[in-house]
Amino acid sequence: MKNKAIFYHAGCPVCVQAEQNVANALDPEKYEVESVHLGTDKSRVTEAEAAGVKSVPALVMDGTPFHINFGAGIEALK
Amino acid sequence: MKNKAIFYHAGCPVCVQAEQNVANALDPEKYEVESVHLGTDKSRVTEAEAAGVKSVPALVMDGTPFHINFGAGIEALK
Repeated sequence: MKNKAIFYHAGCPVCVQAEQNVANALDPEKYEVESVHLGTDKSRVTEAEAAGVKSVPALVMDGTPFHINFGAGIEALK
Repeated sequence: MKNKAIFYHAGCPVCVQAEQNVANALDPEKYEVESVHLGTDKSRVTEAEAAGVKSVPALVMDGTPFHINFGAGIEALK
């Protein structure tokens, strides 16, 4: 079974670059990657925060948050 | 031809977690991943800085640095 990786972003340039390079480079045999735009899908901010996401872009893999560079603090997306 | 991804770290817990989750999850069909421990291989700090690495753990993909969470500032590794 594939693991789930969720890429949270806000459409910012730093986010787009991280998605194109890091999120899209994950092994499709191991991970199913979902991309969530927290700027347009604010209903998922709570879920992201619960996973430990403090800023975007962030990749949550197996429940663990990995913040990639810094685009925007999550507070700015509420 | 595979692209090169270099994972710079310093053996810290944050680094180990990022390596196990993110670096090891990259698609082996697309990327050849090299892991460099800057704490023990200080000769490569200059190369990491030249690529834009400010802290570890960081993943340099196609010449672009992606800082993953925060383990240690690169200044501490010189």
